[in-house]
Amino acid sequence: MKNEVFVGEGMKYVKEDCPDLYDAIVKLNDAVYTGRVLDYKTQKLMAIGIAAASGDTNATEKQMRSGMAELGITKDEICDVLRVVLLTSGMPPFTKAMKILYEL
Amino acid sequence: MKNEVFVGEGMKYVKEDCPDLYDAIVKLNDAVYTGRVLDYKTQKLMAIGIAAASGDTNATEKQMRSGMAELGITKDEICDVLRVVLLTSGMPPFTKAMKILYEL
Amino acid sequence: MKNEVFVGEGMKYVKEDCPDLYDAIVKLNDAVYTGRVLDYKTQKLMAIGIAAASGDTNATEKQMRSGMAELGITKDEICDVLRVVLLTSGMPPFTKAMKILYEL
Amino acid sequence: MKNEVFVGEGMKYVKEDCPDLYDAIVKLNDAVYTGRVLDYKTQKLMAIGIAAASGDTNATEKQMRSGMAELGITKDEICDVLRVVLLTSGMPPFTKAMKILYEL
Amino acid sequence: MKNEVFVGEGMKYVKEDCPDLYDAIVKLNDAVYTGRVLDYKTQKLMAIGIAAASGDTNATEKQMRSGMAELGITKDEICDVLRVVLLTSGMPPFTKAMKILYEL
Amino acid sequence: MKNEVFVGEGMKYVKEDCPDLYDAIVKLNDAVYTGRVLDYKTQKLMAIGIAAASGDTNATEKQMRSGMAELGITKDEICDVLRVVLLTSGMPPFTKAMKILYEL
Repeated sequence: MKNEVFVGEGMKYVKEDCPDLYDAIVKLNDAVYTGRVLDYKTQKLMAIGIAAASGDTNATEKQMRSGMAELGITKDEICDVLRVVLLTSGMPPFTKAMKILYEL
Repeated sequence: MKNEVFVGEGMKYVKEDCPDLYDAIVKLNDAVYTGRVLDYKTQKLMAIGIAAASGDTNATEKQMRSGMAELGITKDEICDVLRVVLLTSGMPPFTKAMKILYEL
Repeated sequence: MKNEVFVGEGMKYVKEDCPDLYDAIVKLNDAVYTGRVLDYKTQKLMAIGIAAASGDTNATEKQMRSGMAELGITKDEICDVLRVVLLTSGMPPFTKAMKILYEL
Repeated sequence: MKNEVFVGEGMKYVKEDCPDLYDAIVKLNDAVYTGRVLDYKTQKLMAIGIAAASGDTNATEKQMRSGMAELGITKDEICDVLRVVLLTSGMPPFTKAMKILYEL
Repeated sequence: MKNEVFVGEGMKYVKEDCPDLYDAIVKLNDAVYTGRVLDYKTQKLMAIGIAAASGDTNATEKQMRSGMAELGITKDEICDVLRVVLLTSGMPPFTKAMKILYEL
Repeated sequence: MKNEVFVGEGMKYVKEDCPDLYDAIVKLNDAVYTGRVLDYKTQKLMAIGIAAASGDTNATEKQMRSGMAELGITKDEICDVLRVVLLTSGMPPFTKAMKILYEL
């Protein structure tokens, strides 16, 4: 199982309290991250970019951390992702994500 | 110049009417899409994913079209991007983007 | 299977082209709409409200239609949902959803 | 007056400093939460769902707290609301809201 | 009454079907647009900018039209508003709003 | 250079680590805030309103602070901006921004 999304506190409660939902999420997570042509690392960069574009501090940090720890994604790679965030989503989510990245 | 974002009607009016702003956008676009480590195609997939996650029909279609025309991005690659959109952003933006992709 | 989310064009393509993902979505959909205490109709009202609050025209119309067809949800009930949308999300998503509701 | 939205710090300043606006908000709040067919509790669950779907930590916690204190809404009921958030809005707002719920 | 937000189809249905809610909205609208220090035109520019930043095509067009018709707001003024949208919210909402503006 | 957006931590890292991108952002920022007809202060109020409407706490506080320090924008002016946020974007971003404003 590609388990990067399951490290957060929120999922711990889901597992304990809603096992049916937890199982469905694990299955979906596996289906999502088993791309047919893109490798897992590229998909993970995607998740980092989408989290940063949405301006969600917690999700952005969690995705960056797990991408770096699990897949060896580098700061330079994330920085290139955030360049796209700047163009597509504006300054506030970009600078917020840069701050998160450089203070990891 | 990597000119994919400049095909839309909106940018035509910017070029004609606000040349100072147009120049700044061209400069920013070039800086954004000149990643240090990620190639242009990966950054373009990022732009497709972020557009789809935001639920913006026009932007999603424009990014998909230019990615396919300019960079040879395939439907299968975009489909793997949209898998991540499903997990991070929910069903509505995912199904909307799938419909756009399959009706291009 | 509670199948309301599967009527759209987008899901048709998922089913044909990504059967693994389709299966995971069906499983998740079933887990989501099998609440422990809230009935399906209340959860469906929830989905209508969230779609309307996000300003997504397609999703809002699809959720309203399936709620009315499958579960006998009335216009008055949806109107009471949209009152909450007004307070939490402002005039534009509220008036947009009211227009959709009254022109169904 | 259904006063749940008025507990926050922000509204305190509105009341002191912009009484005209405060009066209009009170009137709107009353009109919103006087649904014709849905009861107040169902509308409140809606407000919790919309807040959670938007990923707004403060609003989500405030709505959960007031729903539990004023209306006796249970954790299981909120959990069933959050299931819908997962499907419609993706993992990040869902896990964030689950964490808030279980740490209340 | 400053009635610009009431021209849309959505509000027509509210007036007919939910007069209590309609009255509350009229009162709120009046309180909102009776700023203490900013004039109505500056507040209207604000509404145009926020609508454009949110990427909502209908709301953006409606706000632009009513601002031009009621208050004599010019295309150049709106263009200066949209410059800020570009920086704060990225290319897609900016180019979308420029297209709307130039095709009014 | 109109430098208000450059005070944050995020931009410090951009300047050090991505000087090409930094230069492009400075150029864009200057082009954006050199409106043809609206003055800088009105554009700055626009940036405050858009940040508040998006519910982004950090961006809202940063924009308010720099607007007050650089341009002498008053609390009453910002309050009139936030009135528009209430109508267009709902209670949660409005009360959040009022709290930020009154606790600056």
